[in-house]
Amino acid sequence: MKKASIDGGVGLERGGVGTRRRVALRDVAAAANVHPSTASRALNSGTRDRVNAETVARVLEAARSVGYEPNSLARGLRTNRTRTIGMLIPDLTNPLFPPIVKGIEARLSQDGYTLVLANTNYELEREASIARAMVARQVDGLLLATARQEYPLVHDLLAAGCQVVLVNRTMDNAPVASVTGDEHLGIGLAVAHLASLGHREIAYVGGDAEASTGLGRYQAFVARLQEEGLPLDPDLVAHSVRFHEEPGAAAFAELLDRGKRFTAVVAANDRLALGCYDVLRERGLRVPQDVSVTGYNDMLFADRFSPPLTTVRIPHYQIGVKAAQLLLEALEDHDSPPMTVRLSPTLVVRDSTMRPRRS
Amino acid sequence: MKKASIDGGVGLERGGVGTRRRVALRDVAAAANVHPSTASRALNSGTRDRVNAETVARVLEAARSVGYEPNSLARGLRTNRTRTIGMLIPDLTNPLFPPIVKGIEARLSQDGYTLVLANTNYELEREASIARAMVARQVDGLLLATARQEYPLVHDLLAAGCQVVLVNRTMDNAPVASVTGDEHLGIGLAVAHLASLGHREIAYVGGDAEASTGLGRYQAFVARLQEEGLPLDPDLVAHSVRFHEEPGAAAFAELLDRGKRFTAVVAANDRLALGCYDVLRERGLRVPQDVSVTGYNDMLFADRFSPPLTTVRIPHYQIGVKAAQLLLEALEDHDSPPMTVRLSPTLVVRDSTMRPRRS
Repeated sequence: MKKASIDGGVGLERGGVGTRRRVALRDVAAAANVHPSTASRALNSGTRDRVNAETVARVLEAARSVGYEPNSLARGLRTNRTRTIGMLIPDLTNPLFPPIVKGIEARLSQDGYTLVLANTNYELEREASIARAMVARQVDGLLLATARQEYPLVHDLLAAGCQVVLVNRTMDNAPVASVTGDEHLGIGLAVAHLASLGHREIAYVGGDAEASTGLGRYQAFVARLQEEGLPLDPDLVAHSVRFHEEPGAAAFAELLDRGKRFTAVVAANDRLALGCYDVLRERGLRVPQDVSVTGYNDMLFADRFSPPLTTVRIPHYQIGVKAAQLLLEALEDHDSPPMTVRLSPTLVVRDSTMRPRRS
Repeated sequence: MKKASIDGGVGLERGGVGTRRRVALRDVAAAANVHPSTASRALNSGTRDRVNAETVARVLEAARSVGYEPNSLARGLRTNRTRTIGMLIPDLTNPLFPPIVKGIEARLSQDGYTLVLANTNYELEREASIARAMVARQVDGLLLATARQEYPLVHDLLAAGCQVVLVNRTMDNAPVASVTGDEHLGIGLAVAHLASLGHREIAYVGGDAEASTGLGRYQAFVARLQEEGLPLDPDLVAHSVRFHEEPGAAAFAELLDRGKRFTAVVAANDRLALGCYDVLRERGLRVPQDVSVTGYNDMLFADRFSPPLTTVRIPHYQIGVKAAQLLLEALEDHDSPPMTVRLSPTLVVRDSTMRPRRS
C-alpha cells in the first residue's frame, strides 16, 4: 500500500522526524472554515459540483492563500493508485456480509474503485497473511470485517501507513475508523419491545465476546434491563462461542437446564435466535406462545422462518456505503482523524414475540 | 497473469510462430504412456508419492530420453507465481455461492494459495474490467461463476493464455474447464419424485436462460417429463428473468393467470420456489395441500422455510473443492485438455410436496 498522503510528497512523510511539514488539506479546510472532506471535494474538479459555488470559491481562495498545490499532488496520487480496495470477511456464509459488500461496491464504483474480497474463516494467521498479500499487491486501502477487541493486525497496518476502516466491528484500543450498527440502541429496541409486551424475566444468549458485536450487545443488554427497571439474573445469561445456530443452541440448552423461569429471550443475532428455536422445539416449547424470541440483524430470510422472526434491523447496505465513503475520504485526506460511525437500527416486529401468558 | 507454461521458457511460447518447440510435459507423458497429469506428479518431488514407484521410474526415464528438464523449469514457474487465484461471483447475496467459496478456499489453502473474490452484480463490463485488473495484478488463475452461454470474456482470457475454470456454470462453445452440478440428474430427481407421488400436470418456473443453469435445467425438465411419460404443456412453463424471488413470483403469477390446471411446480432454484410460495399464499393456495413445490440447490435455510422446502441438493462445497483442484492441476500442467466435471445431486424431501388431492 502506498504511503503517499495528500500533504506529503515523495520522501516527506507526515510527522517524520526532521521533515518540514507541507501544507495539508486540513490547513486549507481550516482557512476556509469548512470540513476537510468539503475542501477535498471543492478542490477536486470531478466532485466540485457537489459543493455549492460560494464554498468552492472560498476553498480555492484559501488554498491559494496557504500555498496549497492540489492539482499536482492529487494527480500524483491518482496515477500511483491501483484503485483497488481489499476487504477481509470472517465468514462469507453469514448472510449479514453480502449486503454490506453490495453497499461498499456501490459506493466504491462511483469513484471507479474495485473491491477484492477474502474470506478468512476466523483464522487470525490467515487474516494477517492475506492482508499482507493485498498490501503487497498494492491495494489502496483495507476494509476489515474481522476485527477483534485484541487485534494486532490493525496496529501493524496502521503503523505501516495503511488506510483501514473497520466494518461491522470496532476496536476500543486503536485509533481506527469504523462503521457499525448502534448496539446500544439496537438491543434497547429488543428489550423495550419485550418489556412493553409485559415480559419481566428476560433471558439473553450472547455471541463471541472477543468481537465488539458480542461484547457491546451484552453490555447494552445489561444497561437496558436496568433502564427498564428489570432484574438481571446471571442464570438467565449464556454466551455462545460463535454467532451460529449450533453453539447458540448449546448455550441456550445449558441456560434452560438451570431451571430458572423466563418468558422471553433476546438473542445477540438471528442465527443464535434460530439456535433457540431449535432447542425450544426439541423441548416441546412453542415460539412465541411459551417463549418469545428476538433476533438481531434482520438477515436474509428472517421473515421466512417458522415463525417469522421479530428482530432488530441493522442497515447493512448503508454500513457498507458509509465504510467505503470513510475509506475514500481517508485516501483523499490522510490527516482527518479516524471516525467512529454508528448507524441506528430499527425494530421489525414479526411473529416470534407476544405477551407472556399468565402463569 | 503469467503466460509461462510448464514447457515454455522465457520468450519461447508454446506454438508461437517461428519458435522452436521445447520438449513438453506431454512429450514425456506420451513417451512414458501415461496421462500428462500423472507425468507431472511423477516429475514433481512434492507429489511423487501419489504415483506408484514403477510409473515414477518410467516417467523419469522417459523425461531423460526426450531431454525434458523438469526441475529448473518447474522451479522457475514456482517463483514467478503469486499464489493468488481470482474469482468472479455474479451475486454474493445468493446463498449458493458462499459454500462454493469455502470449498475452493479449503482446497487452495492446502497448496498455499489464496483466493481473492469480486462480486460483479451480473454486469458484463464490470466482469471484464475486474478480470483484467486481476490479471494485471498477476493472479495465477481465474475461477468464474459468472459465465453465460455467450461470454466473450472467457475467449479473451483463454486467448491470453490465462488458466480459467468455470464454476457452477458451463459454456457450450468454449474449450474451458468447468465444475457444476449435474442438471439433468438433478431436475430428474425432482420430476421423478413428483411423478412417484402421482402428479401428472407439473408446471415449471425456469431461470435466466442465458446461463447454462437456466438453459440446462429447462432442457432437463422437458427431457425428464418425456421419460416419465408425462405431457409437456407450454402453458405450464414460465421463465423468470433472474434466479430471484420477485421475478420468479412474477413469472409464476403469469403462469397461474393462464388458468391451466396443475398440481405441482418444479422451480429451477430455491429462490424461485420462494417466489412460488409467495404467489400461492397471496392467492389463498396452500403448499403442499393445493400445490406441491420443489426447489433446486438446497441453499442455506431451505430447511427452515414455511413449509420446509423439498429440493435438490447440489454439493456446492465439493464443486468448489473440485474447481480449485482442476485449476491447480492446470497450473502444474498447461497441456492437459480442459475437463467438464458434473457432480451428482441428491433429493431432499421435506414438507413442500405431497400426493395430489383427487379433484
